[in-house]
Amino acid sequence: MSGAPDKGRATRRQFLLGGAAAGVGAVGGAAAGATLAATAPATSPDPTASAPPALHGASTVAFHGAHQAGIATDAPAHALFLALDLRDGVDREALGRLMRTLSDDAARLSAGRPALADTEPELAPAPANLTVTFGFGPGFVARAGGEMPAWLGPLPAFGIDRLRPEYGDGDLLLQICSDDPLTAAHAARMLLKDARSFATVRWRQRGFRRAHGTQAPGTTMRNLFGQVDGTSNPRPGSAEFARTVWIDDGWLAGGTSVVVRRIRLDLDGWDRIDRAGREQSVGRTLADGAPLTGGGEHDEPDLAATTPLGFPVIPAFAHLRRARGEGGGEGAAERIFRRAYNDDADPSGEEISESALVFVSFQADVHAQFVPIQQRLDELDLLNTWTTPIGSAVFAVPPGCAPGGWIGETLLA
Amino acid sequence: MSGAPDKGRATRRQFLLGGAAAGVGAVGGAAAGATLAATAPATSPDPTASAPPALHGASTVAFHGAHQAGIATDAPAHALFLALDLRDGVDREALGRLMRTLSDDAARLSAGRPALADTEPELAPAPANLTVTFGFGPGFVARAGGEMPAWLGPLPAFGIDRLRPEYGDGDLLLQICSDDPLTAAHAARMLLKDARSFATVRWRQRGFRRAHGTQAPGTTMRNLFGQVDGTSNPRPGSAEFARTVWIDDGWLAGGTSVVVRRIRLDLDGWDRIDRAGREQSVGRTLADGAPLTGGGEHDEPDLAATTPLGFPVIPAFAHLRRARGEGGGEGAAERIFRRAYNDDADPSGEEISESALVFVSFQADVHAQFVPIQQRLDELDLLNTWTTPIGSAVFAVPPGCAPGGWIGETLLA
Repeated sequence: MSGAPDKGRATRRQFLLGGAAAGVGAVGGAAAGATLAATAPATSPDPTASAPPALHGASTVAFHGAHQAGIATDAPAHALFLALDLRDGVDREALGRLMRTLSDDAARLSAGRPALADTEPELAPAPANLTVTFGFGPGFVARAGGEMPAWLGPLPAFGIDRLRPEYGDGDLLLQICSDDPLTAAHAARMLLKDARSFATVRWRQRGFRRAHGTQAPGTTMRNLFGQVDGTSNPRPGSAEFARTVWIDDGWLAGGTSVVVRRIRLDLDGWDRIDRAGREQSVGRTLADGAPLTGGGEHDEPDLAATTPLGFPVIPAFAHLRRARGEGGGEGAAERIFRRAYNDDADPSGEEISESALVFVSFQADVHAQFVPIQQRLDELDLLNTWTTPIGSAVFAVPPGCAPGGWIGETLLA
Repeated sequence: MSGAPDKGRATRRQFLLGGAAAGVGAVGGAAAGATLAATAPATSPDPTASAPPALHGASTVAFHGAHQAGIATDAPAHALFLALDLRDGVDREALGRLMRTLSDDAARLSAGRPALADTEPELAPAPANLTVTFGFGPGFVARAGGEMPAWLGPLPAFGIDRLRPEYGDGDLLLQICSDDPLTAAHAARMLLKDARSFATVRWRQRGFRRAHGTQAPGTTMRNLFGQVDGTSNPRPGSAEFARTVWIDDGWLAGGTSVVVRRIRLDLDGWDRIDRAGREQSVGRTLADGAPLTGGGEHDEPDLAATTPLGFPVIPAFAHLRRARGEGGGEGAAERIFRRAYNDDADPSGEEISESALVFVSFQADVHAQFVPIQQRLDELDLLNTWTTPIGSAVFAVPPGCAPGGWIGETLLA
């Protein structure tokens, strides 16, 4: 699938990188392995400038592998989530053509090469860790005539939900991530051009995290509440991660599920809470994300610890306690892998901001892992005061593919 | 104004940077000078990872100086343009309080310190070249009782315009730029909180360019048409730049004007044009931005050159020829300094993308410099086929200020 090397590529990339002889990330191998082809320009355009930073535009994440990219791989700074509705009459055979085309172009773009019929090829040579991850909604699996996972469909209704149809459900998800926003926009357009005769855009959500290189790799992201977000994640590559995320059998073997929920953040309400109140509602310190019972961000909370007056140090209503449950933590059945993004839309009226968390979690079984956590949070979680789910969608995420293969072949081939 | 060092800063930044001993960019000095405090983490969180990239989160651009930051300084990857409408009853005295407060917080945030009443101080210590640039609309200058520049107001009506009020005009502009999208979002909210009792948000536009470090510094940006954008700009720091941009007298001495126009890009229409047609419409090659008469991107076009059949090599309808006019180029009176951004909004209906160029130009005199260029483009420019101005606003950009001073003091003090 990766095809013959594009002879124009080196020239374009050299141009893009200002004359640098750019290393090209190797394609293939472990899906979780990002190749950092950092380069220094041969000539600095301004001799009075400070030492030029290492360039990361040519960095690639392998598209091919046992698992799709964009799950266990480090979350880049930018994401676009696109949910499509299949057009009438698109049958199983057409779905195969659609996924072959999308996979082929996703592989090209992930390697820093233009899409097959790329109309803006000059935008392709800076993949900046571009990944494209595909998810199938219940409508897609039904048309494919495949086995329907029991968990594939709308989540149970939660009392805190105020769901808006413009952020809900869909037949096909494209999760496009890159450390470069122009690359993500270009990839989205090229893939949507591939898909437009098969499907229409149902919804689109943007997401951002800290830019590549503004903080050390491996630092937990912060959301627009200022909280660290994702501390308790299992570590990609660990046995715990594999047990949490990957499905073992059927057409989804090597795949997973993804839940995408748009959570509106009431920053004006959050502003009215002092730091102590915020920390009590979360169960962690704001400064470094450590549990209120002490230690560092990644230390286990002591849920039994009490104050001298006998109250729990981590309150009964704290998000940490409610999300985890009494039997939570390392090795627990109810774990998920979060890979969330921030979004910030245009305010209206007297608003000064309209902020959201694009909650994204991967887990082998939505019903066994995600739903119990969310049910506990629905029952009691002080954070609910300032957070409102306004979008919700679930997709089956098929396994990766080898070079020459395509995403969805285990369902459609 | 910069006040006493914040004792919490080093600790927070060290946390944010994963334990790195981060250099802090010096504040003060020439407004055009960005300080790159690139740091390497003392300990890599994953010993198997590739060599960590240089960190640029602590890089700062000086807020104080003869000119405001965010004009001559390198354009960071992300921008937010916020236009505010003053509330009824906000008088000259109140405008002074507003601008003192905004200037103080903009200076703090630009230095990587929390705003004075920062509710999310953990988001502040990665300024990533944050700049905040203020512009005053005619309503602001009128309430201040100041001298009104002749050019401060809506532009003449152009035949190609299809202006929408939601992207037009305004009393006060905040241009917030950073290489980190979370930093830009946080700065926007903190400054809007300062302003909310004085003004409401009229419009907001986002903008992006290639991420920091994906290409060599000094490379001309590309827009979503794939074209290089801004090739013919005068070079910041040059006499030509100073002549083009800075105003010499009155309360705007050391200041300039800014035109912000939202240009909708019809990418579906652009798709139907082949590469030769695109290059003819622009007058430059797509691959490297060189004029069609040869040379490199920054070489002068030969507007007199003809083909063997006697036709001009750069057609009469080409954007390059129309924008420049027959007497254009280095030293011409009708020059502007462009600092545009890309934007990509949610598509609707059968659309797969809704793209725009947020055109931003700085010039000493809108009528003498910007308007004649735009009039020529309005009369004839093949690019008009695929581009539609849908927003337009003009602001007076006051000079910078010294530490202890504030933006707008030459109008309001």
